[in-house]
Amino acid sequence: MKIGVLGTGTVGSTLASKLVALGHEVRMGAREANNAKAKAWAESAGRGASAGDFADAAAFGEIVLSCTLGEKAVEALRAAKAENLRGKVVVDVSNPLDFSRGMPRVLTGSAGESLGEQIQQALPDARVVKALNTVNAGVMVDPRRVGGESDLFLCGNDAAAKTRVAALLKELGWTRIHDLGPIVSARGMEAYLLFWLTLMGAFKTADFNVRIVRGES
Amino acid sequence: MKIGVLGTGTVGSTLASKLVALGHEVRMGAREANNAKAKAWAESAGRGASAGDFADAAAFGEIVLSCTLGEKAVEALRAAKAENLRGKVVVDVSNPLDFSRGMPRVLTGSAGESLGEQIQQALPDARVVKALNTVNAGVMVDPRRVGGESDLFLCGNDAAAKTRVAALLKELGWTRIHDLGPIVSARGMEAYLLFWLTLMGAFKTADFNVRIVRGES
Repeated sequence: MKIGVLGTGTVGSTLASKLVALGHEVRMGAREANNAKAKAWAESAGRGASAGDFADAAAFGEIVLSCTLGEKAVEALRAAKAENLRGKVVVDVSNPLDFSRGMPRVLTGSAGESLGEQIQQALPDARVVKALNTVNAGVMVDPRRVGGESDLFLCGNDAAAKTRVAALLKELGWTRIHDLGPIVSARGMEAYLLFWLTLMGAFKTADFNVRIVRGES
Repeated sequence: MKIGVLGTGTVGSTLASKLVALGHEVRMGAREANNAKAKAWAESAGRGASAGDFADAAAFGEIVLSCTLGEKAVEALRAAKAENLRGKVVVDVSNPLDFSRGMPRVLTGSAGESLGEQIQQALPDARVVKALNTVNAGVMVDPRRVGGESDLFLCGNDAAAKTRVAALLKELGWTRIHDLGPIVSARGMEAYLLFWLTLMGAFKTADFNVRIVRGES
């Protein structure tokens, strides 16, 4: 499949490299078409990897992963242009963390609106699915590194889009995927990050995740 | 042990009844000394159960559980009087949810300060431990009802207080308890509630919990 990845940071490059390794064609998009990190990634990631600006990557992908910093996500998707994303599945991987203060904190979500909803509002013709934001980049592409089976969550307004994203997550190795409903559930998925950060501080590692325990599981 | 329980709702009465069943002496405290729910609970809960106002329950307990609605917790603890709580372990079970709007939401926590911290600030001579707020009342006192072993979290500034609370949690049936550090970690534990509410909406049950998966577990 052709996949666009917006963002050149750890999350974007980790996901992009894994997707290339799985046989997908991946175009990494950056603000500028000649972004050094994106070009270096495309040269090293092997067959199927390419680089461009946000709009190039969005136009290229059948699915587009939004992997910029949360505070830049809406801006990056606007630069990617709505016409390049119309009807497409946009996976919102980012978290609205504010790194400008001493302790990262969720900016939106618990304040009444999530980044996932903001992205869906900014791109009404795209099919936004929130996913992968609840784990570290290394865990996203290697779920078993936490030491056992654990759970991933997604939400979005379009059932077919969620089915496609779930299939992609299974390719990444995820076996336990919970559909949490419409995109408004991004509020809960983003608020979880404050809990995740607290756990990371206590455990002194990002290699962990949660597993839901309930009657059926 | 003598335990004070502040609050006559589902959380307070569920915990108080279980603690009586475990052989503890429990005084349930309400705003008014002749509160009908507290008196009815004391009459039905059996040997060791009694009722009073917030100050009575606080003076009675060696450990005091704060189980009122989150938005009333600081007010209830002020009514319980600081001199009745000096040096004591105060377990903050509540969540700062705002039920006045359509969808419950966390009021504090992600906004930069948690209810747990507010309670510790209001009672500088008490030893506040946040615990039990991440599960439903029924699960608090019967951890296995979710269908397997799952995890509980606590935080607070006083290590000895956390050890005492962990011992009490073990009496309730909890085997996997994570110390998340000082009371500031209540921000993460309270933000988790928005995630919990999202899961509850998707699962259509409150009988679930999370289990941490990481190398050692």
